[in-house]
Amino acid sequence: MQVQLWCIGKTSEKYLQQGIDIYTKRLSHYCKFKMEIIKDVKPQKDPEALKLLEAEQIMKNLVPTDYLMLLDEKGKEYSSEDFAAALGQMQLRSIKRVVFVVAGAYGAHESLIKRADQKLSLSQMTFSHQMIRLFFTEQLYRAYTILRNEKYHNS
Amino acid sequence: MQVQLWCIGKTSEKYLQQGIDIYTKRLSHYCKFKMEIIKDVKPQKDPEALKLLEAEQIMKNLVPTDYLMLLDEKGKEYSSEDFAAALGQMQLRSIKRVVFVVAGAYGAHESLIKRADQKLSLSQMTFSHQMIRLFFTEQLYRAYTILRNEKYHNS
Repeated sequence: MQVQLWCIGKTSEKYLQQGIDIYTKRLSHYCKFKMEIIKDVKPQKDPEALKLLEAEQIMKNLVPTDYLMLLDEKGKEYSSEDFAAALGQMQLRSIKRVVFVVAGAYGAHESLIKRADQKLSLSQMTFSHQMIRLFFTEQLYRAYTILRNEKYHNS
Repeated sequence: MQVQLWCIGKTSEKYLQQGIDIYTKRLSHYCKFKMEIIKDVKPQKDPEALKLLEAEQIMKNLVPTDYLMLLDEKGKEYSSEDFAAALGQMQLRSIKRVVFVVAGAYGAHESLIKRADQKLSLSQMTFSHQMIRLFFTEQLYRAYTILRNEKYHNS
């Protein structure tokens, strides 16, 4: 199963990219993981217009068989074990590619929310859409160690 | 109000320390914030024995007037706005020092849980006790920007 994390705009902070790189490398032993940067759209005065453009940018890269997991504050909260179980279910259902999408700073457009197969919230707290990238890759790695029943080294 | 984050053992990853340093610097404009490293205790075969030693190490550094917020998976989840409000309340109550404690890899000992004035969970997911340090400093910074009604730049 291919697992991808799609984000809007480059990772601005070096330290975040370093952390993401560490977990991406670790994940390579478990799945075909890739983080994809969706190019920034032209800044818009109206946040709704911006969200729509971002959603269009994301949707044109999706194929109908993609399983879309939207990282959204209003989504369902999982424990790490439940998240691992959900990932295990996807593998069993022979999903070819699961795409996790972190929307831009203003959140996801309605059209993207509608297309999503699941909405996942990492926390009731709001984290910057940049930092979510690091949190998510750590959780994805943790999920695979749970599925494989491996000891996770708290490093 | 002094705000401190106490953690067991050095921050092992450079990228995490860099992120923590960025938010510590930003926080200096809002409060007297300091992250304190509680020295590792001698490794113990029994996790309970380890947790007790860690708790003792933490408690001997606390004074009775300290308000202890324990970062614990079983704690209460707050939204960023609720967390900011809780922090605002502490300022109003003239609390001298609030100490946030991240326990070690095995969690907090019962005695520390009993001493805690509040238990705070950042997420239903389990994050490494190292990464929690970064998440927390970001949330603390976010809380102060909320209290001051400032725009938080999603950087």
